[in-house]
Amino acid sequence: MFTGLSAFPLTPLKDDSVDEAAFTGLVQRLADSGVDSITALGSTGSYAYLTAAERARVAQLAVEHAGGVPVFVGVGALRTSHVLANVRSAEAAGAAGVLLAPISYQPLTDDDVLGLFQAVTAGTDLPVIVYDNPGTTHFSFSTELYARIAELPGIASIKIPGVPRDAAEARNRVAGIRAVLPEHVTIGVSGDATAADGLAAGCDVWYSVIAGTLPAPALRILRAARADSANTADEADQADRAHQTDRAAAAAAESARLAPLWQLFAEFGSLRVTAAIAEQLGLAPHASLPLPLRGLDSNGRTRVARVLEELRLA
Amino acid sequence: MFTGLSAFPLTPLKDDSVDEAAFTGLVQRLADSGVDSITALGSTGSYAYLTAAERARVAQLAVEHAGGVPVFVGVGALRTSHVLANVRSAEAAGAAGVLLAPISYQPLTDDDVLGLFQAVTAGTDLPVIVYDNPGTTHFSFSTELYARIAELPGIASIKIPGVPRDAAEARNRVAGIRAVLPEHVTIGVSGDATAADGLAAGCDVWYSVIAGTLPAPALRILRAARADSANTADEADQADRAHQTDRAAAAAAESARLAPLWQLFAEFGSLRVTAAIAEQLGLAPHASLPLPLRGLDSNGRTRVARVLEELRLA
Repeated sequence: MFTGLSAFPLTPLKDDSVDEAAFTGLVQRLADSGVDSITALGSTGSYAYLTAAERARVAQLAVEHAGGVPVFVGVGALRTSHVLANVRSAEAAGAAGVLLAPISYQPLTDDDVLGLFQAVTAGTDLPVIVYDNPGTTHFSFSTELYARIAELPGIASIKIPGVPRDAAEARNRVAGIRAVLPEHVTIGVSGDATAADGLAAGCDVWYSVIAGTLPAPALRILRAARADSANTADEADQADRAHQTDRAAAAAAESARLAPLWQLFAEFGSLRVTAAIAEQLGLAPHASLPLPLRGLDSNGRTRVARVLEELRLA
Repeated sequence: MFTGLSAFPLTPLKDDSVDEAAFTGLVQRLADSGVDSITALGSTGSYAYLTAAERARVAQLAVEHAGGVPVFVGVGALRTSHVLANVRSAEAAGAAGVLLAPISYQPLTDDDVLGLFQAVTAGTDLPVIVYDNPGTTHFSFSTELYARIAELPGIASIKIPGVPRDAAEARNRVAGIRAVLPEHVTIGVSGDATAADGLAAGCDVWYSVIAGTLPAPALRILRAARADSANTADEADQADRAHQTDRAAAAAAESARLAPLWQLFAEFGSLRVTAAIAEQLGLAPHASLPLPLRGLDSNGRTRVARVLEELRLA
């Protein structure tokens, strides 16, 4: 279940309340798109800005409108007891798993973070995705800490930040993590711009911002990377290294087509750009981000509209 | 009102609830100590980890037990509407001002932060302290942004991070900020280990972690720095530069006496050390920090106890 493409929908706000119609519209689009899973209330879903009650409601709406596609729910919060309350509401909603980032205000130690994952895995039977996103959490996992956490019962997957651009370095990085994990724990790449590289380097799953709003181009990248997905990467490696290289090149080519989009992500951050795309396509109301986050200004929006047109995504 | 020593009490928890008796005990100690103000729900008061209801209650208790000493209340939150709700509860409690840090999950732009301060100053008549604490907020103010925010009506003070260790650099830094602020906006130093340097460099107020739990040694530093406090720093400067240098040296000497404490702060963070001190002195229950933050381990606690004894603070 923790493989393939996991799409992260926005949680659009309207007048500082969750726009339930817009949110369920995004989820239904994903349910129809062929993505492998939907992760509600990821960073893209603005989980950190929402109240516990809003989060419980969004989790419930996500599962109700996902048409049977597995839904993972972000449960991160600054205080362990609040995380556990979010886990309760994810369970009640019928989530297939939870995503947990060690968000911080005071800097966290490795022991703090291990204790958090111990508390959560002890408190639920739902599989847990470890969410390593230092750009927002300001906590950096060591490979050793991955290993300590992955030993806990219930850990299903680790969402790592983007991989190095160099293919050999990327493969080494993923292999180095793989070497310390139990076999059942999958590795997922985030950082959409380097997702093709991550998949080529051996990641099992792409936890994707863009797929939450534009699933089709994300699926093209995934499918190019997995043309031979009946075989495991390992079998393919033994059988046909040339074929594997072809797939990596094809995925890289699909990703390169989206270079103008990745450029906008780098410039404004993926959340602000994705919100502008959803607003442009009528999938979210204007000014759908939680204040103080401002959406792109009119110049930025014009550039987004131009890129959507250029890439025939509008 | 935004001068002198502002003491930041802990908000001790017991079994994941605010320990109201411990908190009011800390506030009463401060009310009796001679500090100029009390800032409840600062970083040291774990505001970021508490619910809106807990924060409203803590604000109320702080004002009730402060014996007329002005109480400032931290109102920061990730979402602007939540900040405004905290401002409402600070007003209802009778706070004399609010402290606002632009805490972040998604990185904030200067315009986001300006918009946040605009919303808050437009929404309250209480004076606002701008809280610049990049170590926890992950947002860095430029001097230019200080200037734009300080122009807003109601901005009373800016709490800057520690100053450079070099005295001339520190003076230049403070003078550079002073040059862009309206005259009524005070500059406050934080980072207890460099507070004596900050006061010598011209800061008007010390926003202090340690004073929240151990006001006496903090007051000794402040009073050494302000031996001639009837005069303004400027008059003193003209009248007797030598005297000013003496005071800086006296404050530095008082601060240097606490070097073993500053060393623990550097090693473990001021919050964990201060919580251990409060626990050691019986001012807070054991394990008083909000999980996932763990207190110091037994080795760390032994070192804290030793330093307290060595400095005759126990």
